[in-house]
Amino acid sequence: MENNNAHNTTLTAPVIHSENFLEHWQGHRRLTRKVIEAFPEKELYSFSIGGMRPFSELAMELIKIARPGIEGVVSGKWENLDDMPTPKTKKEILELWDQVTEQIDTLWPQIAPARFQEKDLAFGMYENNIYGTLLYFTDNEIHHRGQGYVYLRALGITPPPFWERE
Amino acid sequence: MENNNAHNTTLTAPVIHSENFLEHWQGHRRLTRKVIEAFPEKELYSFSIGGMRPFSELAMELIKIARPGIEGVVSGKWENLDDMPTPKTKKEILELWDQVTEQIDTLWPQIAPARFQEKDLAFGMYENNIYGTLLYFTDNEIHHRGQGYVYLRALGITPPPFWERE
Repeated sequence: MENNNAHNTTLTAPVIHSENFLEHWQGHRRLTRKVIEAFPEKELYSFSIGGMRPFSELAMELIKIARPGIEGVVSGKWENLDDMPTPKTKKEILELWDQVTEQIDTLWPQIAPARFQEKDLAFGMYENNIYGTLLYFTDNEIHHRGQGYVYLRALGITPPPFWERE
Repeated sequence: MENNNAHNTTLTAPVIHSENFLEHWQGHRRLTRKVIEAFPEKELYSFSIGGMRPFSELAMELIKIARPGIEGVVSGKWENLDDMPTPKTKKEILELWDQVTEQIDTLWPQIAPARFQEKDLAFGMYENNIYGTLLYFTDNEIHHRGQGYVYLRALGITPPPFWERE
């Protein structure tokens, strides 16, 4: 602990590599899928606390970010899906979810190595390095899913364990 | 999108480097600090939903992970702080929080570059690569802080914006 300065070169060391970030994201998406599944159909669309959105809308936000998000990360073209309607059943939301899972797996290997460090305006609005934008996607998912955990607990339903990513 | 296989070498590309991960973690910690501050003293210790812990206990969990966590990441020695008592005031929790902030800034540059990819048993129990353990620390913080947002909303208090990390 004495030689603080001697180690400063470590600040440029890579921490997370592409395939590990992909697995990180998809692991979180598998857990979020289980949280969607854990909601009874009615409460998925109606239950909320403190004026917040029901979990169907939080899940749709994640879909509307991830689907055009992975395309924008690869191509630099950012589509706006804000007007995409929320499907009327849990089954259809899960089908959309699974389509995005496949899409991420397909597009991810097409991200050019230098792209992660590039600055871009995500969705034409949010300036960040691509790695920061990708962290934002996953962080935002964890954040809203954590809110879903409170909804489930308030409904008397035990949520899936946080560490379960299979 | 045609040449999927041509790009497979990108899966080894670095996405996040050491100094950026440090900033990622500390940015989240600054936001969590604001969430602790946003709770009225009484509700910080008493308010909960669905049998969950009050936010004082969630904040203490984060402190009990981060403080020995950064030491374990650097040294491979993992201390267990489970029995650390919860301070009786918000001010003291915030002081502990700020001590950990300094400690992370001090110790982080001492992480050896190869360490991020090493496997270790975090806290003697959780086997993971160090980068995975560090992601778990931040993800767990985002998860519990998201729960704190619901508590604040239920109390009629507007939480700090999620994207605010200053």
